[in-house]
Amino acid sequence: MSRRYKIVLAYDGTAYSGYQVQDNGVSVQQRLEEVLEYLDRQPVRVFGSSRTDAGVHARGFVAHFDLTKPIPPQGLLRGMNARLPDDIRVLKASYAKPDFDARKSAKGKEYRYFVYNADILPPHLAPYWTFCHRPLDVQAMQDAANRFVGRHDFVSFAANPHRDLETTVRNIFSFKVRKAGPRVTFIVQGDGFLYKQVRSMVGFLISVGKGGEKPAAVTELLEAAAPRTARVQTAPGKGLFLWKVWYR
Amino acid sequence: MSRRYKIVLAYDGTAYSGYQVQDNGVSVQQRLEEVLEYLDRQPVRVFGSSRTDAGVHARGFVAHFDLTKPIPPQGLLRGMNARLPDDIRVLKASYAKPDFDARKSAKGKEYRYFVYNADILPPHLAPYWTFCHRPLDVQAMQDAANRFVGRHDFVSFAANPHRDLETTVRNIFSFKVRKAGPRVTFIVQGDGFLYKQVRSMVGFLISVGKGGEKPAAVTELLEAAAPRTARVQTAPGKGLFLWKVWYR
Repeated sequence: MSRRYKIVLAYDGTAYSGYQVQDNGVSVQQRLEEVLEYLDRQPVRVFGSSRTDAGVHARGFVAHFDLTKPIPPQGLLRGMNARLPDDIRVLKASYAKPDFDARKSAKGKEYRYFVYNADILPPHLAPYWTFCHRPLDVQAMQDAANRFVGRHDFVSFAANPHRDLETTVRNIFSFKVRKAGPRVTFIVQGDGFLYKQVRSMVGFLISVGKGGEKPAAVTELLEAAAPRTARVQTAPGKGLFLWKVWYR
Repeated sequence: MSRRYKIVLAYDGTAYSGYQVQDNGVSVQQRLEEVLEYLDRQPVRVFGSSRTDAGVHARGFVAHFDLTKPIPPQGLLRGMNARLPDDIRVLKASYAKPDFDARKSAKGKEYRYFVYNADILPPHLAPYWTFCHRPLDVQAMQDAANRFVGRHDFVSFAANPHRDLETTVRNIFSFKVRKAGPRVTFIVQGDGFLYKQVRSMVGFLISVGKGGEKPAAVTELLEAAAPRTARVQTAPGKGLFLWKVWYR
């Protein structure tokens, strides 16, 4: 008799090739599976809510898996954290229903992207903030961000968007741009995101912030729904955090 | 004709063997000297205000050096930051008087030490915060910290204290312990510190905070002025920041 568990994770993606197991480099999933194999005394497959890329971080990543040994959730949390490296932490662990699926059951996700807009990027922020020394027009970026909100075909703002997918239509619930001193934070919530969609949207908003693009160009590109071109740049992975995932 | 420069640096010490050039590992000094040799077209020796250890960070480290090429300070700052790695940043650069010495001219220094006191250390704080899951008694630690203030022989709170030194007497101006949620910050100012003195004092304060030592033990050890024993532990380097150095 196996039981299903749900965990919430935070991790520093700097040292990883991404969340998902790949041929090259160490992934977060691999680290989790090594620890769970030790605890359950047999191989355990972990299913994540999202495929974060190399260098991308998480504050509220969700995963599920089944264990055959009866481990209470608090003991599981402590046992995992005792064996995981410092850059991956289990923040919560609970039992889940047998049909709970970290990815398919998700109703929405929030990503945050951090840009440090000043002459110098403090070294302790370097692993988690993207640097931009040219002044950014926050109002223009917010105007542009608002144009992403709603149900659209995001094919122009994704890389390899047809990989495994039936549709490139997604629904963005909200997209906020906040500034506090040199710290510019992009907060986007939606029902799901295409491959590199958040980084493509943020990359384009940065072009708008620098004055190279007008906010109206977002509407134009969404309506064209043509494959992504060099006009849409992917913002660096290190500024991106999967912030939270929510369920019914 | 050479000119003397003063720079203020911040760095993330994670990747370095310390500030000072050593036989093993890469030091911050080495990175600075490589860049300055490139800019001045000849070897440049950099003199730092302090010898921070492996893994120790800085927010306001001061250094001086002489250049033969006439580079204006703002150009020097930009030229250095363009060539230094992200984990070392020059925050300020200025001309200095020919007799300015980053170490000998210093009138005081402030170090800060960061302890995260909770069940789980968030992964993004792991490089810069020391973790303690056992509850810390902040009032007892502040009581103990107050006993360090003043002019004392700190031989009991230093490693190899007689290395190169005429005296182990130092003057501590203030020592504060602040708590904000799980974040405990130790802020100490003094005219100078012995090798591993800050980490030894903080290590002992943590023992007091956990209840293993009484605050009065600080006075007792200072008065004994005997070589350090296992009773005084060195807190980990990664929680320590050289915060600022001030001059006349």
